[in-house]
Amino acid sequence: MSQIVKLGMEHRKFAFDKDLPPAATIRSGDTVILETEDANCSLITRETDLWPEFKKIYETAGGCNPVTGPIYVEGAKEGDNLAVEIKRVVPGFARGGGYTSIQSGVGSLEDINGTIQKPLGAKTRILKIENDEIIYKLDNNEEYIKIPVAPFVGTIGVAPKYDRRASFYKGREWCGNVDCPDVKVGSTVLLPVHVEGALLSMGDVHGVQGDGEITGCALECQGIIEATVRLIPKEQSTYLTWPQVDSDEWIGVISIANRGRLTNAMANGYVELAKRMELEYGIPLCDGYMILNLAGKMRVGNGGSCVCRIDRKLLEKYRLK
Amino acid sequence: MSQIVKLGMEHRKFAFDKDLPPAATIRSGDTVILETEDANCSLITRETDLWPEFKKIYETAGGCNPVTGPIYVEGAKEGDNLAVEIKRVVPGFARGGGYTSIQSGVGSLEDINGTIQKPLGAKTRILKIENDEIIYKLDNNEEYIKIPVAPFVGTIGVAPKYDRRASFYKGREWCGNVDCPDVKVGSTVLLPVHVEGALLSMGDVHGVQGDGEITGCALECQGIIEATVRLIPKEQSTYLTWPQVDSDEWIGVISIANRGRLTNAMANGYVELAKRMELEYGIPLCDGYMILNLAGKMRVGNGGSCVCRIDRKLLEKYRLK
Repeated sequence: MSQIVKLGMEHRKFAFDKDLPPAATIRSGDTVILETEDANCSLITRETDLWPEFKKIYETAGGCNPVTGPIYVEGAKEGDNLAVEIKRVVPGFARGGGYTSIQSGVGSLEDINGTIQKPLGAKTRILKIENDEIIYKLDNNEEYIKIPVAPFVGTIGVAPKYDRRASFYKGREWCGNVDCPDVKVGSTVLLPVHVEGALLSMGDVHGVQGDGEITGCALECQGIIEATVRLIPKEQSTYLTWPQVDSDEWIGVISIANRGRLTNAMANGYVELAKRMELEYGIPLCDGYMILNLAGKMRVGNGGSCVCRIDRKLLEKYRLK
Repeated sequence: MSQIVKLGMEHRKFAFDKDLPPAATIRSGDTVILETEDANCSLITRETDLWPEFKKIYETAGGCNPVTGPIYVEGAKEGDNLAVEIKRVVPGFARGGGYTSIQSGVGSLEDINGTIQKPLGAKTRILKIENDEIIYKLDNNEEYIKIPVAPFVGTIGVAPKYDRRASFYKGREWCGNVDCPDVKVGSTVLLPVHVEGALLSMGDVHGVQGDGEITGCALECQGIIEATVRLIPKEQSTYLTWPQVDSDEWIGVISIANRGRLTNAMANGYVELAKRMELEYGIPLCDGYMILNLAGKMRVGNGGSCVCRIDRKLLEKYRLK
């Protein structure tokens, strides 16, 4: 019988690392409920708290962009996969919201002082969530813009085979801080297993994020993630090279930019998706490539990541297994 | 009283160029109905017709990616803008559909022989449109995938101030071959005017296109474009640096990648959009940047272009004029 395992945010870690002792052990089919800390470990709670330098985050909290875990999955071994079905994402459960910020030199606009003609100083906005809307108060008056919440899991991954990887980073081997809004309720993420137990961790709940996360700081908040974890034995695996994310409506690939080149991430994601369409649906690679050319969707994550996907309804009648 | 001006596809041109004689003269508020030729000038009508080399297209047809025009707008002078409201886009009016193709060495995947492990040969698919669906027949059986049509204007632009620009290319000054699916019925494109009469041309109707147009060839077809053209005098202009595309639901910026770097195109587009939010809605730049960070949308065009946009409903109460 499957069980529910809860981990509080005291189990936060700052790396995907095979040498970390498990915070919990589960079996395939079990559900985990994780409390997650925000990316700056609660160093930002007022608008006068600016995004801290890494030195301060590391010295005060021990690292940044924490994930809760790791979770040891019984029987998981190298070559297997984990299918993580996201059941619930609650943003801002602790402070009733979160924050966003501008930091010079960080974000997709790189150096905002050089890119936007009037220099913008560092700034923090504390944002409440009310009735599933984020309340954004403008600087120049008392009015508010309300943005519907669209919560998702910013960081998800497993322990790499050899090296420790900081939870702030992302990569094909462990996935990590990809900030893809498609990793939301109803989605299932397929990850590779490199070490015994897989050592799954998740965190970095975002209340909402614009395409590209252009300031480098979405609606950051503490959160709760509920997910059911299934072990897919190697023999039944359809995993190829990149993490996958699927929903009832589409199948997709999480792809990461090579040296920040989103064009390359998009190409890698579509190549992988064409291969999936061949493996899982029997659609010849050449047709898959052309079908994606006509009907593929690409959604950028945090400027260094994207999801390439295609609607299931176009493919479903060809499914092989 | 406004009039309707029709141009057949015999008026196709292969450049945006101030020295081309106008094919028609209109006044602000007039509507144009343009027949447009496909990107390869009807050199592809059977599946045995592969995407031709540029040499062949140039020698047979005089150029590739033709646009219909140019249209001289009375009174238009440098510094003014043209607002082109797209009223109707009919794909494949002549042959009942169009084609898509794979060409080695072209497209976002660059060299498909190097990127996808099994080499893919050049290939053409002739695709019928029936009941607003594109019928894609698979290589390996008699079955079909049906993709809903989503037609748009692939190439739109004006004459640059000095140089002639081939209609195959795109750039900030003249816009051109941006292949943004947002340039569709219900959208209005705002373009700069550089020379007397503006010399507007449009063409390259696509029946549908996946994000990124990864093979470099969408559903190419002959088409009909109906659009109402309005002259915006310099004094009333809200034009900044990049072409704009707006609909009833959102405002957006068409941005073009610097040396193919989509990440840069995205940054340029968002910076421009933040500036528009300040100019048109009175939202301070810093707030605009953070609002886009939370709620901006980016949609890639043909791998070298994108549209950055934001929903009007978030901003409308702040509109200044």
